[in-house]
Amino acid sequence: MSFKHKHLLDLMDLSREEIQLILDTAESMKEIFTRSIKKVPTLRGKTIISLFYEPSTRTKSSFDLAGKRLSADMMSLSVSTSSVVKGESLVDTAKTMEAMGADAVIMRHSMPGAPHLLAESIDASVLNAGDGAHAHPTQALLDMYSIREERGKIAGETIAIVGDIKHSRVARSNIWALNKLGAKVRVVGPPTLIPANLEEMDVEVYYDLEEGLEGIDVVNILRIQLERQEAGYLPNLREYTKFYGVDEKILELVGDEVTVMHPGPTNRGVEITPEVAYGDQSVINEQVTNGVAIRMALLYLLTGGEKIEETAN
Amino acid sequence: MSFKHKHLLDLMDLSREEIQLILDTAESMKEIFTRSIKKVPTLRGKTIISLFYEPSTRTKSSFDLAGKRLSADMMSLSVSTSSVVKGESLVDTAKTMEAMGADAVIMRHSMPGAPHLLAESIDASVLNAGDGAHAHPTQALLDMYSIREERGKIAGETIAIVGDIKHSRVARSNIWALNKLGAKVRVVGPPTLIPANLEEMDVEVYYDLEEGLEGIDVVNILRIQLERQEAGYLPNLREYTKFYGVDEKILELVGDEVTVMHPGPTNRGVEITPEVAYGDQSVINEQVTNGVAIRMALLYLLTGGEKIEETAN
Amino acid sequence: MSFKHKHLLDLMDLSREEIQLILDTAESMKEIFTRSIKKVPTLRGKTIISLFYEPSTRTKSSFDLAGKRLSADMMSLSVSTSSVVKGESLVDTAKTMEAMGADAVIMRHSMPGAPHLLAESIDASVLNAGDGAHAHPTQALLDMYSIREERGKIAGETIAIVGDIKHSRVARSNIWALNKLGAKVRVVGPPTLIPANLEEMDVEVYYDLEEGLEGIDVVNILRIQLERQEAGYLPNLREYTKFYGVDEKILELVGDEVTVMHPGPTNRGVEITPEVAYGDQSVINEQVTNGVAIRMALLYLLTGGEKIEETAN
Repeated sequence: MSFKHKHLLDLMDLSREEIQLILDTAESMKEIFTRSIKKVPTLRGKTIISLFYEPSTRTKSSFDLAGKRLSADMMSLSVSTSSVVKGESLVDTAKTMEAMGADAVIMRHSMPGAPHLLAESIDASVLNAGDGAHAHPTQALLDMYSIREERGKIAGETIAIVGDIKHSRVARSNIWALNKLGAKVRVVGPPTLIPANLEEMDVEVYYDLEEGLEGIDVVNILRIQLERQEAGYLPNLREYTKFYGVDEKILELVGDEVTVMHPGPTNRGVEITPEVAYGDQSVINEQVTNGVAIRMALLYLLTGGEKIEETAN
Repeated sequence: MSFKHKHLLDLMDLSREEIQLILDTAESMKEIFTRSIKKVPTLRGKTIISLFYEPSTRTKSSFDLAGKRLSADMMSLSVSTSSVVKGESLVDTAKTMEAMGADAVIMRHSMPGAPHLLAESIDASVLNAGDGAHAHPTQALLDMYSIREERGKIAGETIAIVGDIKHSRVARSNIWALNKLGAKVRVVGPPTLIPANLEEMDVEVYYDLEEGLEGIDVVNILRIQLERQEAGYLPNLREYTKFYGVDEKILELVGDEVTVMHPGPTNRGVEITPEVAYGDQSVINEQVTNGVAIRMALLYLLTGGEKIEETAN
Repeated sequence: MSFKHKHLLDLMDLSREEIQLILDTAESMKEIFTRSIKKVPTLRGKTIISLFYEPSTRTKSSFDLAGKRLSADMMSLSVSTSSVVKGESLVDTAKTMEAMGADAVIMRHSMPGAPHLLAESIDASVLNAGDGAHAHPTQALLDMYSIREERGKIAGETIAIVGDIKHSRVARSNIWALNKLGAKVRVVGPPTLIPANLEEMDVEVYYDLEEGLEGIDVVNILRIQLERQEAGYLPNLREYTKFYGVDEKILELVGDEVTVMHPGPTNRGVEITPEVAYGDQSVINEQVTNGVAIRMALLYLLTGGEKIEETAN
């Protein structure tokens, strides 16, 4: 099976088989860079440009390393984060990058749909690295990968997503992918942080943490993003931690077979305690490793690199 | 014919034959990176350092990609733009870069002559990426390349440069190169933006846009650089656009054989309308591509790379 | 002899033989990059991440070039310098870098001991690029290298370190290494800038510059770091220069066989005059070159690259 898409904008564009192809490709990629080889010439001569209008350390570094391990030339376009970016100038920037020979553009933007606008304007591949509260497809894919790797399968597993569901592009992309791959999905959080339009999705809503985590296989704890929240609707942090923070006590009730996930970076002592984040049930660091593998897979599938060779050059 | 210069500081140092050698070399370079090869090992092991004292996205990215496609190691020295840079510390910085093994230094600085000062202090090649209002030789060279590619020749063509001629290093370098290569040059703009010392050059001055564009082959529209202008002498923008903005209406009067150029990024709706910028007569995006090719050619000619091989490594 | 350490945190962890192994390895490295080869595939596939919590141009660039010449993949993690960095988040950052596959992390931090904290948390090699006023081991090693190269030996030489001994990590690392390698060490400066705990080390203290430099072989002039000093204890700059600035006049008294060193960048006209900094006795620029060689040696020894090949790939 080959991969027919030119862009990765939203997981909703992908079939179940295509998601599985990405996960399978990522598995080969993870083997490459966790063995002694680490680097393959697959994307030699390809130019991949990062265009981040929002600050990011993890996602940007992850893409950067993914590209370098495939021998692509990686470049960052420094974008003034203070200047208001209009749709028009975005298209100009895109056309400039294409004229410089970009094969792929990795974009993060606070405006939902910005990567889609980019994709309409250029022939290069566009990878959405997060657009506002809309989608964060590579995060969802690495979460799928981590669940499959840790649990052996995704279909039939019960995953609880805890936290600010309403403003989270991670939650949105995850719920969709989990539904598609046959998992049972719960969301857990205070009513103010649960969106109203969840009926479109196959999701159970819980306002009580203990009830929400009962009988689950995986808990995915979201980061409380203080910088993203409008004033007034968030309960104060101490209250949030009291009712929705995941600590060892609640984890004992839930059981030691449950896998703990978090997209990182954690606000430790807020949504998760250090003991849980670093505990035996946590795969938080493995998620980081899987993120590089997923991004290698996507760069490879989208920019149509040569056949991967088993030996380093 | 070989290239005898060590630095590229100002086009005035070059003969007509040397400029043509650069354009011919750029043609080979453009072939390399627009074919499937994209990357050659020509400058492998060479260290090229960017030293930008003024912000730049396009020129810096263009040099960066040019170097990477020739397999050079590219490095940026982050320079505090706020600190006043004295001549002395500039020389210290230069000597440090040289001691680190730099083969070439690419420099942008607000002070006219700063790259010349650098070139006197070090053995590495210095490339001027813009020094104040003085010169921007790589922009002029890519403009020459674009005219030659689009029109088939430069000699005998009539080029009108529209806008702020007085404060533009692009205008200054372009006028000189066009004269040298046998083109007829016009400048068009309000009297306050036309410098007094143009009599040294072979230029016709027009204050009326319609008159200035009559019978021309190429119009090169400059960016209005609000950040560079002293208070008080610029007509307000609406007036500027009314009298000197290039739109479809005036382009129809001028004729559909005229080539439209702009060094980018455009202030759309100010000096140029989107319809003209993206229209059939515009080569604005091709100029960006040609800029990478010109910079590849210069890095190759100045740092004396090995013979270019036709195959990727 | 092989190198047994995984980290380079403080020179105090190293034996005299280990320091000499580093200097010998750096000698081979200097040969590589000062010849026409310049680049070897020794660390191809290794990922090295820079994590600088304090601004640095020279040290960061030097490490960057060192890694690139060994064909490692270099990446910088942009760290907000304004945010207060707690020990906890530092460990999180470290674990993330490791999960991304970092083989080595180069760290600068204002907090003494921060690199040690990092080294306890991760399996990757940690290189201390300066931690507060504590240590700057790569600077001391390049100074040892420069003394050995210029003087033929270190043991038995008399080195005077002039300036702010109290707040200088360079001074602290240098004194220790010089003692270890059998040199005689003097420190020279105003009483307020000489620390009280020097009795632990084998050091002679001078408050008078002329006396302190009499009969020495090497003078290492420290940078006056205005940004690092608490209010009130520093004599005003004019007075400092009058009593401790090194100029041609004092150098004549000391003799033309004395080697002049400075870690750079110099405050010219303050602790050193331009004539001395650029004079025949100065090895300041050579120190920069040696810094790249020392960092190549350390990256090679710590990350266990393949055998160095004499030919470029």
